Amino acid sequence: MSETANRMSGRECNIPPMPTHVPFSISPLGSIYNASRITNEDNMSNSLVRLLLISNSTLHGSGYLDHAEGEIRDFLAGVRQVLFVPYALRDRDGYAAKVAERLAGMGFRVSSVHQAPDPRAEVETAEAIFIGGGNTFRLLKALYDNDLLDPIRRRAQEGSLRYMGASAGSNVACPTIRTTNDMPIVEPPSLRALGLVPFQINPHYIDPDPNSTLMAETREERLLQFLEENETPVVALREGAMLRVEGGRVMLKGVAAARIFRRGQPPRELVPGARLEL
Amino acid sequence: MSETANRMSGRECNIPPMPTHVPFSISPLGSIYNASRITNEDNMSNSLVRLLLISNSTLHGSGYLDHAEGEIRDFLAGVRQVLFVPYALRDRDGYAAKVAERLAGMGFRVSSVHQAPDPRAEVETAEAIFIGGGNTFRLLKALYDNDLLDPIRRRAQEGSLRYMGASAGSNVACPTIRTTNDMPIVEPPSLRALGLVPFQINPHYIDPDPNSTLMAETREERLLQFLEENETPVVALREGAMLRVEGGRVMLKGVAAARIFRRGQPPRELVPGARLEL
Repeated sequence: MSETANRMSGRECNIPPMPTHVPFSISPLGSIYNASRITNEDNMSNSLVRLLLISNSTLHGSGYLDHAEGEIRDFLAGVRQVLFVPYALRDRDGYAAKVAERLAGMGFRVSSVHQAPDPRAEVETAEAIFIGGGNTFRLLKALYDNDLLDPIRRRAQEGSLRYMGASAGSNVACPTIRTTNDMPIVEPPSLRALGLVPFQINPHYIDPDPNSTLMAETREERLLQFLEENETPVVALREGAMLRVEGGRVMLKGVAAARIFRRGQPPRELVPGARLEL
Repeated sequence: MSETANRMSGRECNIPPMPTHVPFSISPLGSIYNASRITNEDNMSNSLVRLLLISNSTLHGSGYLDHAEGEIRDFLAGVRQVLFVPYALRDRDGYAAKVAERLAGMGFRVSSVHQAPDPRAEVETAEAIFIGGGNTFRLLKALYDNDLLDPIRRRAQEGSLRYMGASAGSNVACPTIRTTNDMPIVEPPSLRALGLVPFQINPHYIDPDPNSTLMAETREERLLQFLEENETPVVALREGAMLRVEGGRVMLKGVAAARIFRRGQPPRELVPGARLEL
């Protein structure tokens, strides 16, 4: 732990400064620097944050965002325009066009941050932001390159920006991207992310396949390895699952259960409709 | 590309200096900084390097290293003692004991680098090194923390240290660990690795499953995403496959085919016994 902390503080030359506005009683960033224990008392003590964190944008057998449409409409009620972040995929124009068409079908206008002359200014005035899935390393690197982490974090924590993420977009809402499934195809200056929740998400969670002959680690084994090195709990979202965070409460939504991993405890299941007690 | 290069050069404060001894006509590190194109002429022009890079240490239905035993015995012929690197797993003592017992059965004595008072000195005098599998990020971070990358690289390039790696241990022989399958549970100061070969390895390669309902990227999709951001070719080793590098030649060994990914070209297959022409 202290090795990690030292190494990270030694890299400050490329890590943006700590945000000054940190309404959590324990900063979610504290869990990166100190691997702080998260207690019940610290769980989403900021009641202003509004998040919809989706495991996967497409569920097998249905179209893009279909399985989440009801929840998205409810979460974005009253919003007219959504700022889209396409950085996780290479084809930003194509991705933005696809999302604009899909959200138009729900009555929302979409602008894409990659087409804005001043991306930071877009973030400063948006009502809602949607960060799409793809490669989490590519996404986080682009968020750093465009200096967007601080304004997104600050406005989400102030309660003036509703935040919706899918897959990689849900990973970057967490303290770090250390529980992504993605390949590190590019190197962001840090694995530190937005820290809007005091836990890690593992999207696309898949249970061990008893018939598999592959000898690589199962997802559960990978998350237990994460807990060997980190104290932050992990919410593993199976495909079809999503988290809604509002009023200081974290609720599991969608059609699939989640699996909760904490150091020193056996994993436990959380069913849709249940509140997450960390 | 240039974004990546700039970002990485901007992080020099925490990256060890470039090695001074680089016998490749294109430095393997060059492929990180510049994403240089690798041509046939540059393929393992250093004929001194001797490597055995294994996809997986255990093959389904057999015991630890069983499927590689014949190749290991041949590769290590004449070696009496092997230096083991257990950093990829948390339980270093248990890992070292397991490997010592297994290699003793092949007639090799084993010392583990984590039990040495001076790990660098061990590397400087070893005849052969074996870097075991586990989590690639944890392994690479420990190699940085113990300042072992430079001496391993230099001695392997001089031809005085035979290098054997399995899974994560094969990943770190490559220019970077950007083609690992592992979760980034800790943060090394850089993804740059040993660069003993001018290509990337993806171990535990698995073909797309036509019956899968999981919507996460297939391995092939992940490697194509890597090639969107990097020019270095990728040798994807299915379980049972391994590469033997000697006399400037790269040969596929083992019982499974490999799949070769190059930017702008369709993936192609390489069968055991064939020479890799990059």
